[in-house]
Amino acid sequence: MAYPPSIQKLIDLFSKFPTVGPRTAARFIFYLLKLSKEEFDKLISSISELKNKIKICKLCFYPFEGEGEVCSICGDQTRDRSLLCIIEKESDLTAIENTKKYKGLYFILGGTVSTLKKADIEKLRIDKLKERVKSPEFKEIIIAINPTTEGEATTLYLERTLQSLNKKITRLGRGLPVGGELEYADEETLSSALESRK
Amino acid sequence: MAYPPSIQKLIDLFSKFPTVGPRTAARFIFYLLKLSKEEFDKLISSISELKNKIKICKLCFYPFEGEGEVCSICGDQTRDRSLLCIIEKESDLTAIENTKKYKGLYFILGGTVSTLKKADIEKLRIDKLKERVKSPEFKEIIIAINPTTEGEATTLYLERTLQSLNKKITRLGRGLPVGGELEYADEETLSSALESRK
Amino acid sequence: MAYPPSIQKLIDLFSKFPTVGPRTAARFIFYLLKLSKEEFDKLISSISELKNKIKICKLCFYPFEGEGEVCSICGDQTRDRSLLCIIEKESDLTAIENTKKYKGLYFILGGTVSTLKKADIEKLRIDKLKERVKSPEFKEIIIAINPTTEGEATTLYLERTLQSLNKKITRLGRGLPVGGELEYADEETLSSALESRK
Amino acid sequence: MAYPPSIQKLIDLFSKFPTVGPRTAARFIFYLLKLSKEEFDKLISSISELKNKIKICKLCFYPFEGEGEVCSICGDQTRDRSLLCIIEKESDLTAIENTKKYKGLYFILGGTVSTLKKADIEKLRIDKLKERVKSPEFKEIIIAINPTTEGEATTLYLERTLQSLNKKITRLGRGLPVGGELEYADEETLSSALESRK
Repeated sequence: MAYPPSIQKLIDLFSKFPTVGPRTAARFIFYLLKLSKEEFDKLISSISELKNKIKICKLCFYPFEGEGEVCSICGDQTRDRSLLCIIEKESDLTAIENTKKYKGLYFILGGTVSTLKKADIEKLRIDKLKERVKSPEFKEIIIAINPTTEGEATTLYLERTLQSLNKKITRLGRGLPVGGELEYADEETLSSALESRK
Repeated sequence: MAYPPSIQKLIDLFSKFPTVGPRTAARFIFYLLKLSKEEFDKLISSISELKNKIKICKLCFYPFEGEGEVCSICGDQTRDRSLLCIIEKESDLTAIENTKKYKGLYFILGGTVSTLKKADIEKLRIDKLKERVKSPEFKEIIIAINPTTEGEATTLYLERTLQSLNKKITRLGRGLPVGGELEYADEETLSSALESRK
Repeated sequence: MAYPPSIQKLIDLFSKFPTVGPRTAARFIFYLLKLSKEEFDKLISSISELKNKIKICKLCFYPFEGEGEVCSICGDQTRDRSLLCIIEKESDLTAIENTKKYKGLYFILGGTVSTLKKADIEKLRIDKLKERVKSPEFKEIIIAINPTTEGEATTLYLERTLQSLNKKITRLGRGLPVGGELEYADEETLSSALESRK
Repeated sequence: MAYPPSIQKLIDLFSKFPTVGPRTAARFIFYLLKLSKEEFDKLISSISELKNKIKICKLCFYPFEGEGEVCSICGDQTRDRSLLCIIEKESDLTAIENTKKYKGLYFILGGTVSTLKKADIEKLRIDKLKERVKSPEFKEIIIAINPTTEGEATTLYLERTLQSLNKKITRLGRGLPVGGELEYADEETLSSALESRK
């Protein structure tokens, strides 16, 4: 059954949100229609505000709010400025910060590549990264990209691109995750778990 | 790690959307921040437009766009006006319309109840329903509520509430769904599949 | 790592059991090795006994134990001998009996076919079925094959094969199973649920 | 519906096999009944043979076939006899051997404990382990128990039990498994992945 045009238009827009398909998009709209005028206006103004209040850090590309050009992590002189951790996306920064174990700086690459085609690579912030890593304060570059197939290809590409720097370049350790089982682990994961025993 | 206040406020609002948790809400915001100004403004205006353009049908409570007070289904004189199908929510109407097998009218109840507590029942459109079913043109009231535990309780409540009407009151048939297997079907489903054989 | 030959041989045999792969087969063997001699011998003798004690009913092909050539269902004169229910496999008989709603007789077809190739069809008990349905006491033949893709092809084939009998031939009813949801049901299931409302 | 006694007895026995419930056990029996006499007899004799041919290694408790009292791993003088890897069950040995990265010896503990109750612990081969680790050739004891809740409790118990040996005691490394994602990793896994970067 056809939706009214103003609903269909919004279904199309919501369907572009990450994880959202047309069915979920429709549920979003039925939800919006049930909001009170006050709640609805608050949502609209909160979304509108985003673009005005939020800036993107010119060093790590994480969104922030406030004065200046850099985010609170990049501007924090108490952090370990010898470490730069390259991550795929914003939510990976949140995940690492939540561990409270990493005190270095970040760089958000903006994606991964499945091939090394120029068009694919240009979607990433490779040029910005090359410039950023030149900073002499960094002693170690940690490539913290997901160990998925695409992530591995990207990590390999980054390793090659950054090797001329003559800096220490590391990857995240592999191993059994919490709750994992030896019997169902792939051989590479289990090999790494054995090698990194301690 | 704490998000900037304008991001956290929006995470809280998006987390109220159906199926969305804080992690998905954060991904929505990182997505919004990557939109071009043009795309962003289009989204804002499409959402804003919803409340202006969309009305709720005063008969079935489905959203619609256009003149008058009733939606295109309730206003369609070629549909079978002797049948009223009570459904839980808007997306159930879409699902039934997509079968192209039902030509009667609808009534969106607005939810289901797990208990028969007054406070729960008052969240549904019971009074509006009682009024609507009085219309003498309806010969059969189809209760098309999901056969889940909550849906069953709601169906039972509706059957009791509507029985004094002296109209035919029916429920959706039970049976094996496409792709289902006898061996894994519960006894009630399999019994119904046997009884409704044809 | 290679298993000892007597273990590998048994892994290969257990891997042919339904639902069992090599990994589960290996776990079966480690389990067997942990059994006490008494438990182990009891298992061996219980398996050996099967072929001696169990006969296959010559009417419905269900396994049974005891005197005579027919199982307790086929021999039960109080059951409704006007109904014959064709099922794929033994466990489907158990599933239907557990509903306690069906009092007719059964016929176990022995499988389903995905194509109508002669070689495939010959794996089923089609000739035995043709002979069995000739019995004048049957007034209705119920085809209770799973509504999966393969099951549908088989049902269609059976309908064609049996139509010359001039007996009532029925299929299980389709509909929403207990716990199902309108929104996620396929169109055919939902159409059937609407048509078989009651 | 009740199964014949000789089938029900076997369903009960098969239901004790790992991963098997009564429904799968019934399918096993229907499968057995369809085997030819030759296939059936081969299965019976292969099972019977197990207890005659297979011995349990008196050092690591892995099943083996052949001369002597120890398995081919424990008897292999080319393996690294300074490493002893404690595992929960036989299939974990297979998993580690398949990586081809570990060349030390094993000890199969025979289970894990969720509590430190005496009755639970006595189900494991703790006394045999204490005796085995005394061997002066072992320089490192690797506790390779699954990092599940129960496995962690068992690892902790083993660490305490073995610490008086004054040998190096290690655990498997934690980290992101192949295919894992930072965003969905728990904090402990991600912390370990960062710490074991290389």
